[in-house]
Amino acid sequence: MSDNSFGHLFRVTTWGESHGPALGCVVDGCPPGLALGPEDIQPWLDRRKPGQNRFVTQRREDDLVRILSGVHEGRTTGTALSLMIENTDQRSKDYGAIADRFRPGHADIAYHLKYGLRDPRGGGRSSARETAARVAAGAVARVVLAALAPGLAIRGAMVQMGADAADPAAFDPAEIARNPLWCPDAAAAARWEGMLDGLRKSGDSVGAVIEVVATGVPAGLGAPLYGKLDADLAAAMMSINAVKGVEIGAGMAAAALTGSANADEIRMGPDGPEFLSNHAGGILGGISTGQPVVVRFAVKPTSSILTPRRTITAAGEEVEIQTKGRHDPCVGIRAVPVGEAMMALVLADHLLRDRGQTGGVRGTIG
Amino acid sequence: MSDNSFGHLFRVTTWGESHGPALGCVVDGCPPGLALGPEDIQPWLDRRKPGQNRFVTQRREDDLVRILSGVHEGRTTGTALSLMIENTDQRSKDYGAIADRFRPGHADIAYHLKYGLRDPRGGGRSSARETAARVAAGAVARVVLAALAPGLAIRGAMVQMGADAADPAAFDPAEIARNPLWCPDAAAAARWEGMLDGLRKSGDSVGAVIEVVATGVPAGLGAPLYGKLDADLAAAMMSINAVKGVEIGAGMAAAALTGSANADEIRMGPDGPEFLSNHAGGILGGISTGQPVVVRFAVKPTSSILTPRRTITAAGEEVEIQTKGRHDPCVGIRAVPVGEAMMALVLADHLLRDRGQTGGVRGTIG
Amino acid sequence: MSDNSFGHLFRVTTWGESHGPALGCVVDGCPPGLALGPEDIQPWLDRRKPGQNRFVTQRREDDLVRILSGVHEGRTTGTALSLMIENTDQRSKDYGAIADRFRPGHADIAYHLKYGLRDPRGGGRSSARETAARVAAGAVARVVLAALAPGLAIRGAMVQMGADAADPAAFDPAEIARNPLWCPDAAAAARWEGMLDGLRKSGDSVGAVIEVVATGVPAGLGAPLYGKLDADLAAAMMSINAVKGVEIGAGMAAAALTGSANADEIRMGPDGPEFLSNHAGGILGGISTGQPVVVRFAVKPTSSILTPRRTITAAGEEVEIQTKGRHDPCVGIRAVPVGEAMMALVLADHLLRDRGQTGGVRGTIG
Amino acid sequence: MSDNSFGHLFRVTTWGESHGPALGCVVDGCPPGLALGPEDIQPWLDRRKPGQNRFVTQRREDDLVRILSGVHEGRTTGTALSLMIENTDQRSKDYGAIADRFRPGHADIAYHLKYGLRDPRGGGRSSARETAARVAAGAVARVVLAALAPGLAIRGAMVQMGADAADPAAFDPAEIARNPLWCPDAAAAARWEGMLDGLRKSGDSVGAVIEVVATGVPAGLGAPLYGKLDADLAAAMMSINAVKGVEIGAGMAAAALTGSANADEIRMGPDGPEFLSNHAGGILGGISTGQPVVVRFAVKPTSSILTPRRTITAAGEEVEIQTKGRHDPCVGIRAVPVGEAMMALVLADHLLRDRGQTGGVRGTIG
Repeated sequence: MSDNSFGHLFRVTTWGESHGPALGCVVDGCPPGLALGPEDIQPWLDRRKPGQNRFVTQRREDDLVRILSGVHEGRTTGTALSLMIENTDQRSKDYGAIADRFRPGHADIAYHLKYGLRDPRGGGRSSARETAARVAAGAVARVVLAALAPGLAIRGAMVQMGADAADPAAFDPAEIARNPLWCPDAAAAARWEGMLDGLRKSGDSVGAVIEVVATGVPAGLGAPLYGKLDADLAAAMMSINAVKGVEIGAGMAAAALTGSANADEIRMGPDGPEFLSNHAGGILGGISTGQPVVVRFAVKPTSSILTPRRTITAAGEEVEIQTKGRHDPCVGIRAVPVGEAMMALVLADHLLRDRGQTGGVRGTIG
Repeated sequence: MSDNSFGHLFRVTTWGESHGPALGCVVDGCPPGLALGPEDIQPWLDRRKPGQNRFVTQRREDDLVRILSGVHEGRTTGTALSLMIENTDQRSKDYGAIADRFRPGHADIAYHLKYGLRDPRGGGRSSARETAARVAAGAVARVVLAALAPGLAIRGAMVQMGADAADPAAFDPAEIARNPLWCPDAAAAARWEGMLDGLRKSGDSVGAVIEVVATGVPAGLGAPLYGKLDADLAAAMMSINAVKGVEIGAGMAAAALTGSANADEIRMGPDGPEFLSNHAGGILGGISTGQPVVVRFAVKPTSSILTPRRTITAAGEEVEIQTKGRHDPCVGIRAVPVGEAMMALVLADHLLRDRGQTGGVRGTIG
Repeated sequence: MSDNSFGHLFRVTTWGESHGPALGCVVDGCPPGLALGPEDIQPWLDRRKPGQNRFVTQRREDDLVRILSGVHEGRTTGTALSLMIENTDQRSKDYGAIADRFRPGHADIAYHLKYGLRDPRGGGRSSARETAARVAAGAVARVVLAALAPGLAIRGAMVQMGADAADPAAFDPAEIARNPLWCPDAAAAARWEGMLDGLRKSGDSVGAVIEVVATGVPAGLGAPLYGKLDADLAAAMMSINAVKGVEIGAGMAAAALTGSANADEIRMGPDGPEFLSNHAGGILGGISTGQPVVVRFAVKPTSSILTPRRTITAAGEEVEIQTKGRHDPCVGIRAVPVGEAMMALVLADHLLRDRGQTGGVRGTIG
Repeated sequence: MSDNSFGHLFRVTTWGESHGPALGCVVDGCPPGLALGPEDIQPWLDRRKPGQNRFVTQRREDDLVRILSGVHEGRTTGTALSLMIENTDQRSKDYGAIADRFRPGHADIAYHLKYGLRDPRGGGRSSARETAARVAAGAVARVVLAALAPGLAIRGAMVQMGADAADPAAFDPAEIARNPLWCPDAAAAARWEGMLDGLRKSGDSVGAVIEVVATGVPAGLGAPLYGKLDADLAAAMMSINAVKGVEIGAGMAAAALTGSANADEIRMGPDGPEFLSNHAGGILGGISTGQPVVVRFAVKPTSSILTPRRTITAAGEEVEIQTKGRHDPCVGIRAVPVGEAMMALVLADHLLRDRGQTGGVRGTIG
């Protein structure tokens, strides 16, 4: 069962609410003997944490991680890792005004209907804050990947904000770290900063498209038919709050292609098969081919906005709602490190799963 | 683990290759006491089966289902249901010419790399033929849904073929059954038939977008955070062979919306909350809200085409390939009943899961 | 979920009722490239099948296995294996007299209470017949073990019938195959044959203790704390119909030992650590140590007996019952191959699981 | 996967080492709306905690539980509960002398072989200390049981210490709480205290048999064939450190019975079926019948003893070992609350699982 757990052999269970005392995760199945300390996890949390610039929520959290179990003398022991992050800036009063009414576009009403009650402080469990636990777990997954698939690299970027897409021809990986929007296209980044300043003034928000690419992924990862690599990536990304669509390779645009245009032709390169294009996004039949694994997902605009919206209360009264407090004009920005973490988690899990079944031996070509 | 199993409480395990003696599935966790016979399953298989018109593969299979276990005197016993469909038209010779070379865009090379060998006859396990087992299992799921959520209805349709989208304004549900392309827009259906005739002549293929809508879905289905209804739907649809993208509600287009445009406002209707729009696709925070659940997925064009393509052999030789035999110019057509089946499977599983945790009790409004 | 599935990476799903058309299983996660044909499975089914001598049920079943998927040109492909055995001797009339009343000691009443209905023909799903599927799956597990742990051997034996225990001092492994009771002590076997002839005359039955020993098990199998090797073996054996107790090593008798008597001392042998005794049954902390893995389980006497017993009907009437038909005076006899199969399944699963997490690398000593 | 998780719908993941900063668990799938606070958990931890009398380890731990998530305003929200207990009395120096050598009968060598390293402080993950997390989770399970099966009660007792069994004829449930050994037979308790004083002087230890009985268990719990109630109980109890055998009802003694003696006859009572005996231990065919569920398990003697024992070091040297520090002369004593917790966890999980599949509706009799 997977209510709050994710993965099979490399398995993460997350817990914690936005305004509770802490949040965290248990990482189970980690290979033993790997060097691991807070210094391997903290940098990734720092990339995700709020309050870093004017474009994200001004909530102040240090997001300091503690490793409570599973490490002895700096090495993983193979037992369960418990990671905990304390919440330090829970200003619950911000949410008092909305405790009795449902925010349109938010999980409020759905939690109320399913569970009969909800934790209204900061969205409780449905808060973007939960993704800190994913990023922490993802950092452990990166340590596993570094050991088992040394050349593997994961690079997330925001490739569209609102209706304004970055220009693929202008993509420069080095640019991603230079702007606060994880945008690989400097011109687009500049435009988006202007867009965000406008949104902050108007109290509105906007959606985004995130692209996560993993290079150096070994061929053979993925377990057809219901543990396909792309199916697990789709679930992973869709499980992130606010995600409404997931694409692999050509994605939705594959529908518009002909078979002759879509199918990636194959030639022999110096190190084995080489594909002449990558419409497949590195995955065929649910199995990685050695090409870059390319995933994109759409993040809807934050529903906590200043614009008054029509809604109801739990008592059934028709009211208006306006969400004050600290919010993200484009929550997609902070989804970039989260998407990377989910990619790392899926790949680490599949590396172990493949090794379990096949021993990691690959079919030969040539 | 989920290599060949799908779902948790309502759990399906499929088996079988395109050109083996049979294929089938085990359906586990079905509630007891439900009336079930082959007559509840066969009609859905008949909708999916090949050879029904000139637009799909001419392979001739009756796809007759046998129920081998789990039913006594016409009622489910609560034990495992075994469903089997014999293959009767396996013309393996069609595939002799491609046994030594990898079809671009096909799972061939990925299976070879992962497993060191593959069943080349008709794609083996990666064949669209596997979806017959999904449709059979989906028919059992429909029986469960009819018992536990009486008003629930599932309607799949092809809404785009190649670059040509049907016009939402012209959608007529009654039209879907009138044309062989499951198209809700009669004018589009006519255009697409022409497109397909052209593709058959040129030996090429084309992709499609399928939309599956479930109405009458009870609120409260979905298990945050890693068993969210949308995450499970994304995995379900992405696990179908050839699918490259999945969208819920507004989908990828949600990125382009502002928060004020996207969030579905809420009012009270005679029977409870009513949403004034459905950008959410019936799911908030991973939980159904009672609105129609709307999923779309893109099916890439069939990779088995007549157009010669560059590829390699297992020996590493650079060759060309041309796939003769019986194929679908638009395999998306037959994906419509499959998408419906996956929707039914996910909903049946989540109905049982929700009932397990909450007893099916809902939070009250008003 | 594990209603009808067993194992994690090497995972078996069984289906079928005693008097349905067939029974079988799906074996998922099998490593690819292993030579496998019916000839690898049939001999193990032949050892278990009924009607082989006067001490077991006289039902006549050939128990011929068919492999319906997962094998291509004599090798496993890594995809799901479907194994099927047709039932040929279902004399349902034997059970007509008991369809309306519950056999004391039988699952009848429990199935009725849980599911609201049951398949009364031969016990339906709770029949010992289901174990044929376990034996078939176990045969596949043996092929995996032969490939991954070449020296591993599994030997089951009946070590107690009724209150009469075989004498461990007289155990001769070669004797097991010489008598129809799988008894390693020739003198005990002779006594038991007499006991069984008496029971058949009186229409009664008797219980038994089965011991299954696996030698050559690699150290390091088992996944603390909830996938411990002994916990999984306990569940595996207890899941066999009629089993009421499971012991590892010293078992229940460990309670009576002092710490100094129980703990197996360790010395260095030519090939590494050697234990001077085996009270642990080859498992410490839930992990195999390299010593023989020793499991015993108690099988209760068959509840289908000729002796009249007091019971009730579904209508609540108080009646007597006498079970005619074909039965086993000591169903424990046929449990020997089943216990071996479950041992093979657990070990194969844990070999793959350990390989997934650790790569099969072992800590060094000396 | 179940390395550090247990259960399916009511699912517990435990973490923490004996001498780390803390230990705890995540409880997933808890029904929403249940009143829950530390006061519901602490009393059960207090029963298990060390240092309460001279017969158990003198380690001093308050075992104070914190609820970090999953509760809002005193009620469960249906999201993951995180429970944490800080370790306060980790005297690691006690273990310095054994860090380089393996204790016979202990998990030391097995962890070393599997993982290549181990946390030697207090046994690390294999310490009895981990059971505190089970007891905390079990307390939550009791809250679930109280809500869903109001009359259900669980009562654990020590029924044998060393070779000295308590006298079933003298069992008095009220006696259990009166002596520090959870013994239902006052005379046996007195004898055992003398035995323990002798063992403490000699620095040795002894095993025990624990019996856990659940009364008021609804009929219909258990999911044949691989989620049988008895199979899950067997795994649950065998997963407790030091357990070597598990019995249901008549247990291993069932082997010695005839079918006519073993099968529990059935009559109609005022409230439905009544069984005239309970050799089945409340479970038939893996499903509860409404009779008391009776489980016994054997706990081996602690391996940490003062008596010098032959062993080896990781370097392969042959040495002697003597374990000083704080230990339990009969660790079985503290296993009583743990066995009760595991019973509660299994029953809560199966209540939810059964409700998922059947809606909790029962077949009628009479």
